[in-house]
Amino acid sequence: MTAPLKSIEGTGDISGVMREIGLRARSASRILALAPAEQKDRALAGMAAAVRAQAGAILAANAEDVAEAKAAGVTGAFLDRLSLDTGRVEAIAAGIEVVRALKDPVGVVTESWTRPNGLRIERVRVPLGVIGIIYESRPNVTADAAVLCMKAGNAAILRGGSDSMRSSRAILSALTRGLEAAGLPEAAVQLVPTRDRTAVGLMLQGLDGNLDVIVPRGGKSLVARVQAEARVPVFAHLEGVCHVFVHRSASLDMAKKIVLNAKMRRTGVCGAAETLLVDRGCADTQLKPLVEMLIEAGCEVRGDAATVAVDKRVKPATEEDWGTEYLDAIIAVKVVDDIAAAIAHIEQYGSHHTDAIVAAGDVGDAAAALFLRNVDSAIVLHNASTQFADGGEFGFGAEIGIATGRLHARGPVGVDQLTTFKYRIHGNGQTRP
Amino acid sequence: MTAPLKSIEGTGDISGVMREIGLRARSASRILALAPAEQKDRALAGMAAAVRAQAGAILAANAEDVAEAKAAGVTGAFLDRLSLDTGRVEAIAAGIEVVRALKDPVGVVTESWTRPNGLRIERVRVPLGVIGIIYESRPNVTADAAVLCMKAGNAAILRGGSDSMRSSRAILSALTRGLEAAGLPEAAVQLVPTRDRTAVGLMLQGLDGNLDVIVPRGGKSLVARVQAEARVPVFAHLEGVCHVFVHRSASLDMAKKIVLNAKMRRTGVCGAAETLLVDRGCADTQLKPLVEMLIEAGCEVRGDAATVAVDKRVKPATEEDWGTEYLDAIIAVKVVDDIAAAIAHIEQYGSHHTDAIVAAGDVGDAAAALFLRNVDSAIVLHNASTQFADGGEFGFGAEIGIATGRLHARGPVGVDQLTTFKYRIHGNGQTRP
Repeated sequence: MTAPLKSIEGTGDISGVMREIGLRARSASRILALAPAEQKDRALAGMAAAVRAQAGAILAANAEDVAEAKAAGVTGAFLDRLSLDTGRVEAIAAGIEVVRALKDPVGVVTESWTRPNGLRIERVRVPLGVIGIIYESRPNVTADAAVLCMKAGNAAILRGGSDSMRSSRAILSALTRGLEAAGLPEAAVQLVPTRDRTAVGLMLQGLDGNLDVIVPRGGKSLVARVQAEARVPVFAHLEGVCHVFVHRSASLDMAKKIVLNAKMRRTGVCGAAETLLVDRGCADTQLKPLVEMLIEAGCEVRGDAATVAVDKRVKPATEEDWGTEYLDAIIAVKVVDDIAAAIAHIEQYGSHHTDAIVAAGDVGDAAAALFLRNVDSAIVLHNASTQFADGGEFGFGAEIGIATGRLHARGPVGVDQLTTFKYRIHGNGQTRP
Repeated sequence: MTAPLKSIEGTGDISGVMREIGLRARSASRILALAPAEQKDRALAGMAAAVRAQAGAILAANAEDVAEAKAAGVTGAFLDRLSLDTGRVEAIAAGIEVVRALKDPVGVVTESWTRPNGLRIERVRVPLGVIGIIYESRPNVTADAAVLCMKAGNAAILRGGSDSMRSSRAILSALTRGLEAAGLPEAAVQLVPTRDRTAVGLMLQGLDGNLDVIVPRGGKSLVARVQAEARVPVFAHLEGVCHVFVHRSASLDMAKKIVLNAKMRRTGVCGAAETLLVDRGCADTQLKPLVEMLIEAGCEVRGDAATVAVDKRVKPATEEDWGTEYLDAIIAVKVVDDIAAAIAHIEQYGSHHTDAIVAAGDVGDAAAALFLRNVDSAIVLHNASTQFADGGEFGFGAEIGIATGRLHARGPVGVDQLTTFKYRIHGNGQTRP
């Protein structure tokens, strides 16, 4: 049974509480930054064990959250994301073990060189510092995000959805157990102890310089607010309006396979394709079969005039469709004059997330090289599904999200991207002339 | 003779002008991003030639700026920084040629790996986009900053000091000549055509998303304003409160050499040492000779009680001295109990810029490893002068400044740091299970 929520509400001094959280996080981050891999891994092992040992308490706390949400009339996908069961708790523990098994990025020398004067310069990975995670009512994020930050030597400040507060606190309690057992500071992972949204505003202001990066995890409105208001760097993507362009050189067989997977494997992920562009040079032979395949797979097709013409089940697309992230079994389809028109379309309507070209043979290779060079997205693919936009598929083991910002982190944000670097210089008495 | 300034003033629509500048820069950045190295280098060669060919016009424009500044009562270092002569114009041209000779970072694959499913993933450098430079009345920055941005495929928006407006315009005219000759867009380098400070505010807001990074070049008040108000990432350092710590293992000879160079080689650079920390374990033998050496070299010494005791010329340091960037022939000196106290002092008073340890032998190597690991600065050195904090000394060829922010760029910001990256994925039909 978790403590009643009122004990952490209404202190009347949210600024003071948040300032204290920032100071504690900064202090913990200094210890974490110097903690050896073995110690961090011991904490992670302890966390996974504690999540398993405390599964009953976590489920009980979650049941309270779920009951409250139901009483408030919440249903559907929101309630599903909020709800834990034995399998989901085990998945949280297993996820911690996956992170534990990752290579510690801290201290890795990524470049080194020696200057003519004998100075040896090393560029070495160090933690970012303190990372703030602002998320919605998915209790598992409490563990997933915190442990990835910690593996990279960062302190985490978590601000979860109000509806999952009890669940998050129960999970945090297990994480804290792991930290304590390994002799690491409890403040390495902190949960903002209030549902008051003022706390989010204070995090977006950077907690007096004690927050180095913010990662929003949730829907578009959350990400939009964070991006608009944050005074600290944000690792995020607002949306994934991802394209598949079928070049005139493509084989129909591969085009069908990739388009179907890119759109329909999972429609709710940010790497799902939202728009299909078909080269006019192959539209005669490929447009109709691609459209039929999609419709038969249960996908609504909204097309330009040429697409409407090939199948009466196609609805006419509006201007708005070209920029829409459906996250659903709907796709916009357009015939473009050539690869240049495809690139221009993606530049105009895309979100710089993930875009793919299907193209075969020598002509196709040249087209792909052009596409991969010209399309200004975090991830560009040749002959592969856009659904590979995922840290796990990149081999990162785990990710905290996908970023479309241009600086520091771009694409899947894994443990390496949660570090920065410093320069270590080794001399033997050099002075500068 | 440059056009009279009033022609570019008082349009009454600074927002509209700045919006247009942002749009033109974004558009130019797309062309620059795809320009081959050869074309960019041709533009740089043309720029250097045009600076030399138009030296007369540049000097005439500068003479007007200088005359106006003198009439306004400006003197001293400010006037010196504003003034050009034949040698300084030649140095601008030579600087452009140095950048031309650098390796083009764009398109360089920095990592690549193949996944078990056969996908080949490449991480490749791409330009940042549009970079804003806000600087004071140093006309040479107009060329230095613009060409470094351009080499990395970025468009530049320059906002120089009001007092150097005519000089900057004359230099820009030469840069534009080079761009045109190589067939690159004029808008690749733009100068904000107004002295109105509203323009700076608009740049700090990011020009409707058309400015990706801001680099302030100038004094502390300029950098502080930019850091406080910018809504886009900033590459900068506010100050360099750099330390030299003389460990008990250090040889007096090396300590003297490094301390003298770190403090006195050039006192006005951000990598100049401002504080000397001496280990209590060697203070008996080393403090007095170090202090005497500094005073005899013309340096004012402000010390703690132990330092005051060794030489009557030492002034007592106040609390404020420990956090002061003098940029002058003044140094604060303190005896610390041990290496842990030195690290704690640097954490408390330093600016995360550049810090050095002098330490010899096996004991010294262990101390240095601890120091380099624990001191959280962009650059940490063992047995070398802090004055090596410089892009040229790192082998970067040229730098746009030194950053102490934690994200993306840290330490000297050279041409590589003016890029970001994207992921290119090469498949042969892979779909995600």
